Amino acid sequence: MKPTITAFERSPDGGKGLARDMRVRWALEETGQDYEVRLRSFSALNEPAHLALHPFGQIPTYEEGDLTLFESGAIVLHIAERHQGLLPVDANARARAITWMFGALNTVEPPVFDRDLAMILEREEPWYEQRMRVLEDSIRKRLGALSTRLGDAEWLDGRFSAGDLLMVTVLRRLKGSGMLEETPNLAAYVARGEARPAFKRAFDAQLAVFKSASTGG
Amino acid sequence: MKPTITAFERSPDGGKGLARDMRVRWALEETGQDYEVRLRSFSALNEPAHLALHPFGQIPTYEEGDLTLFESGAIVLHIAERHQGLLPVDANARARAITWMFGALNTVEPPVFDRDLAMILEREEPWYEQRMRVLEDSIRKRLGALSTRLGDAEWLDGRFSAGDLLMVTVLRRLKGSGMLEETPNLAAYVARGEARPAFKRAFDAQLAVFKSASTGG
Repeated sequence: MKPTITAFERSPDGGKGLARDMRVRWALEETGQDYEVRLRSFSALNEPAHLALHPFGQIPTYEEGDLTLFESGAIVLHIAERHQGLLPVDANARARAITWMFGALNTVEPPVFDRDLAMILEREEPWYEQRMRVLEDSIRKRLGALSTRLGDAEWLDGRFSAGDLLMVTVLRRLKGSGMLEETPNLAAYVARGEARPAFKRAFDAQLAVFKSASTGG
Repeated sequence: MKPTITAFERSPDGGKGLARDMRVRWALEETGQDYEVRLRSFSALNEPAHLALHPFGQIPTYEEGDLTLFESGAIVLHIAERHQGLLPVDANARARAITWMFGALNTVEPPVFDRDLAMILEREEPWYEQRMRVLEDSIRKRLGALSTRLGDAEWLDGRFSAGDLLMVTVLRRLKGSGMLEETPNLAAYVARGEARPAFKRAFDAQLAVFKSASTGG
């Protein structure tokens, strides 16, 4: 049964693939799954039809038969558990890969996301510069720890996993900040993720949506 | 094999059970597992021995034989997958419970945690009050959505699950803020979580550590 996900009708990042549907598209591509996309305008996110799928009024959601999921991390884990390619078979290696999924979303993403949000919402506030310094210090601390752990390995723990998939999508938000380049092994890690054919297919699919919306097509 | 977790030698919350080892203790108690605790001073968190367990220098960690995990969410999921009591048997219900785990940690916790952090780090700043308003608006938006979804149900999706366990630990951080009381069904939900015998055992265990540290015992 082909799953259906939701995504922004017009992504606020201009087609850079930073919205969270990108993670789910990438996971579906890595595991060779076909899928449908239902596009949502911003105003539709808080309408009852969408809130029935996602109580917090966000994207993506995931529908498969009578199962409805939200939270990109949970959706990626669901896909990874049901199809080969994103989690090791060995039980301990699998638990460690899942640890990196939570690490990406619960430890690395919060300051990275806060920085993006502050750049949009707090630019005119009196605390903006100091707040950015605090956030960037916090991000650098995480990047330093992650860079040390990665070392010269290709992926975080053995073969490419759902943990790497989520971590790469989180780190991609730092592009243009200059911070990623301060840890060259992390910059190379992100580039390896982006070079995967499944990433490219997912990226092109979300970009096509943005282009179509931009031309009114 | 009895697992070993790490926890603060002296928790900064004064024994309120807000540190993230509480989640893991609670999950171990719900599933009837015995465990060992290795206490860490703050300075020990950045020493090589601890960084080998947790690349980001935090607590808790989880060691079981030759498996080492970090990230409280991943540890709770690991426990829930291997023992009965925290995840439904039905595959779809199980995926939904895991969705709530990610929802607690990736959607509700970030603004709640940011508020706690701002109260510690930004209290003397001229913008403190305005910043708190922004954070509290963001928290209220999440609480409103969560309250609507919970309605008059006992737990978020059927029986008590690891999703409820994590959500209750996140919402407990709001005690004393007055915000939880604005959504009475969420206040009652937290109270139901805290009334569980496994919660009480976990709470008492972390409180005993704090009391012992405070009396130099």
